[in-house]
Amino acid sequence: MIAETIFVGTELLLGNIVNTNATYLAQELAKLGISSYYQTVVGDNKERLKGCIETALSRSDIVILSGGLGPTQDDITKETAAEVFGMELLPDESCKADLLAYFAGKNMQMPECNYKQAMIPKGATVLRNANGTAPGIYMEKDGKIQILLPGPPVELRPMFAEQVIPLLKKEQKEVIVSVMVKACGISESDVAQRLSDLITGCGDVTVAPYAKTGEVHLRVTTRAGSEKDAEKRIKPVIKEIKSKLGDCVYTTHEDVTLEKAVVDLLVANDLTVTTVESCTGGLIAARLINVPGVSSVFKDGYVTYSNRAKRKIVGVKRHTLDKYGAVSEQVVKEMLAGGSAYRKADVVVAVSGIAGPDGGTEEKPVGLVYIGCSVCGEMTVKKYRFFGNREKIRESSVAQALVLMRRCVLEYYGKNTFGKVKK
Amino acid sequence: MIAETIFVGTELLLGNIVNTNATYLAQELAKLGISSYYQTVVGDNKERLKGCIETALSRSDIVILSGGLGPTQDDITKETAAEVFGMELLPDESCKADLLAYFAGKNMQMPECNYKQAMIPKGATVLRNANGTAPGIYMEKDGKIQILLPGPPVELRPMFAEQVIPLLKKEQKEVIVSVMVKACGISESDVAQRLSDLITGCGDVTVAPYAKTGEVHLRVTTRAGSEKDAEKRIKPVIKEIKSKLGDCVYTTHEDVTLEKAVVDLLVANDLTVTTVESCTGGLIAARLINVPGVSSVFKDGYVTYSNRAKRKIVGVKRHTLDKYGAVSEQVVKEMLAGGSAYRKADVVVAVSGIAGPDGGTEEKPVGLVYIGCSVCGEMTVKKYRFFGNREKIRESSVAQALVLMRRCVLEYYGKNTFGKVKK
Repeated sequence: MIAETIFVGTELLLGNIVNTNATYLAQELAKLGISSYYQTVVGDNKERLKGCIETALSRSDIVILSGGLGPTQDDITKETAAEVFGMELLPDESCKADLLAYFAGKNMQMPECNYKQAMIPKGATVLRNANGTAPGIYMEKDGKIQILLPGPPVELRPMFAEQVIPLLKKEQKEVIVSVMVKACGISESDVAQRLSDLITGCGDVTVAPYAKTGEVHLRVTTRAGSEKDAEKRIKPVIKEIKSKLGDCVYTTHEDVTLEKAVVDLLVANDLTVTTVESCTGGLIAARLINVPGVSSVFKDGYVTYSNRAKRKIVGVKRHTLDKYGAVSEQVVKEMLAGGSAYRKADVVVAVSGIAGPDGGTEEKPVGLVYIGCSVCGEMTVKKYRFFGNREKIRESSVAQALVLMRRCVLEYYGKNTFGKVKK
Repeated sequence: MIAETIFVGTELLLGNIVNTNATYLAQELAKLGISSYYQTVVGDNKERLKGCIETALSRSDIVILSGGLGPTQDDITKETAAEVFGMELLPDESCKADLLAYFAGKNMQMPECNYKQAMIPKGATVLRNANGTAPGIYMEKDGKIQILLPGPPVELRPMFAEQVIPLLKKEQKEVIVSVMVKACGISESDVAQRLSDLITGCGDVTVAPYAKTGEVHLRVTTRAGSEKDAEKRIKPVIKEIKSKLGDCVYTTHEDVTLEKAVVDLLVANDLTVTTVESCTGGLIAARLINVPGVSSVFKDGYVTYSNRAKRKIVGVKRHTLDKYGAVSEQVVKEMLAGGSAYRKADVVVAVSGIAGPDGGTEEKPVGLVYIGCSVCGEMTVKKYRFFGNREKIRESSVAQALVLMRRCVLEYYGKNTFGKVKK
């Protein structure tokens, strides 16, 4: 089955918003095993939109449109799509009730223009919208399908996930099963080498690697007659990946982030954590705190940006700063020591580096970053050289700090409890 | 003049990367006053790509392609685009020299396959690439223009800005001048109301508002026969916007961010700053530290996530926490007081809120956030209610904290130095 996507909106043509809906729908279609050869962006213009829909229907089985379902005169997607299918728009009582309830919930009266949103092409399936006013539409004619979704991602995503995917799965003869294996602390080329057979292999199961900052994700996909058969095929491949990448693999769950894996590891082992950040300036703390439930292990964090702050807050010695400079292994070690001694945390992560654009020298160039982690007093400090602008260098530093934290906790327990780390 | 963009790459069709090139090029074309009605994404497939280029050339004057200029067999954009124009590919000595120098600079020998990148359509203009191996191409035939750009944004953006824009400006009979006015601390609807004449007005100068988290940006654009004439037209409009929005306007420079405006204000007035963050967990510090040169005013920051950290680090009283709860005006006031008394900073910003998904109650729902700022001891604490997920609530909190900091500094100086704040 072939699908293609059309995004309707002048704001996309003007570059006012990034088309994240395109990325989301592309990923979801790929997971369903539905091929997609084109994506089109077009403005709120009837003639041009109609041309795009007709072209798309001539070369694909399914056309998914997003945007242009609002209540104003500019919103013409539904009218145009219905016209292409030769379908009449009729008022739909349940849509009208949904709309009235939506406005009542906000203590507002429904504006007259919103009644337009309750007009539905005759014979179409309504996709209810719990997060906005525009209902979605699923309509079929002569073996072709048009799916109309609202533009705002907070409305489009749940509607697609909860209502469209089940409908598309029914259209598919085969079942696609896909698992995301996430690894960290290993380079993309190293992963590619270790898994070369699996990645290039043209077997039933495909393994596609994606490089992320500090991480490599592997999408493992197969299609089969039933979910059970697909899972049976995928299982040994996941096992092989795990055996080849070892504990670099931190999850096989799509929605587990690296910071969540780190926080889970700390929580499972009852380890409190503190952050002592210079160039990352609070970003490590911020990423850890993005994990709900972090409060049982994260109590406090410190941004020691100036030399004085490094001395006063975590007791870095003036002598060390003078002799080695703030961006040095020695200073990061003292930041770690101060973090555990003064701040009484089991795990301390500390970072000092030169994020640029100024401040670099030949000996200590922009991008030089020292990252350290101590677990119950055992310290590790590593030297890194990152590239890119200030933002990119800081982002890379945060990712590597999380990787190092995970590695240090795993190794500490590997040595000190005969490998009995709780994961 | 009408342009359209085509993005070539299977990774876009699979959703592996977000199409930020589309956004960038759309913005730049709009700034140049070049209309754009379509954007297309297509895979690395010769037949389909050729069809897309032909369709685009039939309805637009300029077709900009990005991606597919690499050295592998999969990269077919240049070959296909040249074929459509009936142009032969010939080896280009200066391109070859650039490539050899690029690899020599990395102490690497150039792989054989990269010679393909030095093949240039006969009669085309080469766009040199200082950031990668693929040269860009600018070629014209029968009044139509094709522009080929590399896919990686770090290569595409400087090439477009430095080499393509001057070429496109030559094609334009008129000059477009565009200024971005950025305002904060005012809602989009308030801006729309105050500027309704300018926004709906169909005069020579257009004013288009864009809502950002905590901010409203206004793009003011006009076209004229010369740059001087355009600027003469724009000037009174900018003046009118400033007079209607007052000091909510923080810059008229495209590349000045809100955090930069705040840091500049602190630097100009010699005010040191510290952060005392609970639910934002280091994000305010991180945004301030994203501004190069912040070190003269930002020395240290604190993430006081637990109640104990609030007590130990900034001296919030146990009694206050027990009586009012951590998310309260009273606690934020004590965080501010502790920030200035213990941490000796002129300006303190403090945040405590419920970012969710858990922890909300009927009285204190998820999204309730108190943000405070003190300037030389004068405190302001405000109550906010944000919506969205944990990430969104934290992002909104950070934006509003920056807005509040700016407001408090301006007001402090307004009262205490007869309005002589340095901006």
